Amino acid sequence: MSNQQYLTLDRTNDKMPIIGFGCWKVEENVEETVYTAIKNGYRLIDGAAVYENEVGVGKGINRAISEGIVKREDLFVVSKLWNTYHNKAHVRAAMDRTLKDLNLDYVDLYIIHFPVPCQYVDPKEQYPGPWTIDGKMKIEKSPMHELWAEMEKLVDAGLARNIGISNFNCQIIMDLLTYAKYKPATLQIELHPYLQQRELVKWVKEQGLQVTAYSSFGPSSYVKLTKDAKTVTPLFEHDMIKSIADKHKKTPAQVLLRWAIDQEIAVIPKSMSSDRMKSNIDVFDFKLDEKDHADIKKLDENLRFNSLFAYGIPVPLFN
Amino acid sequence: MSNQQYLTLDRTNDKMPIIGFGCWKVEENVEETVYTAIKNGYRLIDGAAVYENEVGVGKGINRAISEGIVKREDLFVVSKLWNTYHNKAHVRAAMDRTLKDLNLDYVDLYIIHFPVPCQYVDPKEQYPGPWTIDGKMKIEKSPMHELWAEMEKLVDAGLARNIGISNFNCQIIMDLLTYAKYKPATLQIELHPYLQQRELVKWVKEQGLQVTAYSSFGPSSYVKLTKDAKTVTPLFEHDMIKSIADKHKKTPAQVLLRWAIDQEIAVIPKSMSSDRMKSNIDVFDFKLDEKDHADIKKLDENLRFNSLFAYGIPVPLFN
Repeated sequence: MSNQQYLTLDRTNDKMPIIGFGCWKVEENVEETVYTAIKNGYRLIDGAAVYENEVGVGKGINRAISEGIVKREDLFVVSKLWNTYHNKAHVRAAMDRTLKDLNLDYVDLYIIHFPVPCQYVDPKEQYPGPWTIDGKMKIEKSPMHELWAEMEKLVDAGLARNIGISNFNCQIIMDLLTYAKYKPATLQIELHPYLQQRELVKWVKEQGLQVTAYSSFGPSSYVKLTKDAKTVTPLFEHDMIKSIADKHKKTPAQVLLRWAIDQEIAVIPKSMSSDRMKSNIDVFDFKLDEKDHADIKKLDENLRFNSLFAYGIPVPLFN
Repeated sequence: MSNQQYLTLDRTNDKMPIIGFGCWKVEENVEETVYTAIKNGYRLIDGAAVYENEVGVGKGINRAISEGIVKREDLFVVSKLWNTYHNKAHVRAAMDRTLKDLNLDYVDLYIIHFPVPCQYVDPKEQYPGPWTIDGKMKIEKSPMHELWAEMEKLVDAGLARNIGISNFNCQIIMDLLTYAKYKPATLQIELHPYLQQRELVKWVKEQGLQVTAYSSFGPSSYVKLTKDAKTVTPLFEHDMIKSIADKHKKTPAQVLLRWAIDQEIAVIPKSMSSDRMKSNIDVFDFKLDEKDHADIKKLDENLRFNSLFAYGIPVPLFN
């Protein structure tokens, strides 16, 4: 299995696998699922405090290590700081909790999950804290420049080899770049043929950040959350994607992942089935051709599924 | 002429006229044009350093004052800090230059024109400085939180009664609200039926900012700048807008202005003709009805003309 393709991160020169296993919505058999992913060749595990499964993720990782399938240094473990811990008083504790849950000494990449400082809730009461309190999103007065300085301290303390951002857009990234001592290593964003974000990706790469796509399969994760996801054609069933897949003797999922990888964008598909895990990572023996890329380019509708409105929160985060 | 409608600004309780005269592209007969606008009833003058006409704007204002048409306190004068002066070392000098050019002691509202810190260029060499140097936009390392603190000092020094922002989007506004001692009084954004920005406007107003629409007439100012502006139907010629105008015995321009005012959004139309100035401000004797608003709502295409791409700058500021 030749899945050893990487993106090199600025500053550390760490090699981030261009394909990883995404832990969002891994809700059952977490340990077994993550362990199986590693056995199936995944070397990047993309997690987050808010996925509420870091204990299981850690067990899967540590089982694979203790069985000698991988060494810790062969893995690239990602976690994300949740919104309720943006205050400089709470960042280190959030990192510590994630490391304790994962039962690891460090993560390879620690990401600010959203540029949204939600009011702090004591983890003893609720972990992780909620988007809203009494139906309203309350903003914690924690400026991004103070938060970023705390993120940098996690690097200096050896707890996070790299630090990054997710769901940030151009304006706040430009501001971040004016004060960051360590630039963000990566930007993780929703990205698929219906939301191609070409201009943002190009600009962000010019600034020295690598880009990771989430929701590579488009609406499929959001049908319970948003109206748009129900009404748009699922990408797996889209005639164009299917015909490109047929041409290359691949699945639509493999085409969607390869489409991002061809653009040097990392992907983090999730699957609960070992067969699909294997299939998703088996994307290094083909490439989309120019016509495929030109055709898929036409599918861009600037159609975002993971807006906050999907969670009933009336904050136009991407406007 | 009953044009005395206002939006009240937070903190100062200053009353900002809901309609003003926009000085962008007032390139000839500047003094006469601004003087005429005031004579025609405009009480808000919306200028900016980058419009390169503040000397003329100031002459027009001071002529109207010296002739007794208005007192200074009857006017609401707006200017904008240009991108090349975001560094905390240059903000006060930029304000001083604008006040000197205007020949005024203070402005009523001083706005950060774009959340884009461009590399400083000494005003002795070029005033105001350029978007790009050798075809590239170079970012000045001037964090927004340091810039905002300087803006607040202008308030404390009595040079700007209110401070605001323009072309900012949700993420950087949310961050600004975590550290601002004085919240921005207003957000000025491109807004017209093709770019209605309803979610952003709603959220920003909930945060206590007033909203000013620029380019109320849509593509007409941008036909030389962007392809989209040439291919889309001009709003003045749009059948729906024309038929609403006919129904109310008003012009399409008046309908477009009233459409924003009905939403309690301020407008700043520019015109070089005294007759059109009078017509533009004559919008307080009618209202659009529910059907008009419902129809115009359907024109929203999220179509932005004033992106940086319009100026050949490959920065996806609104992505």
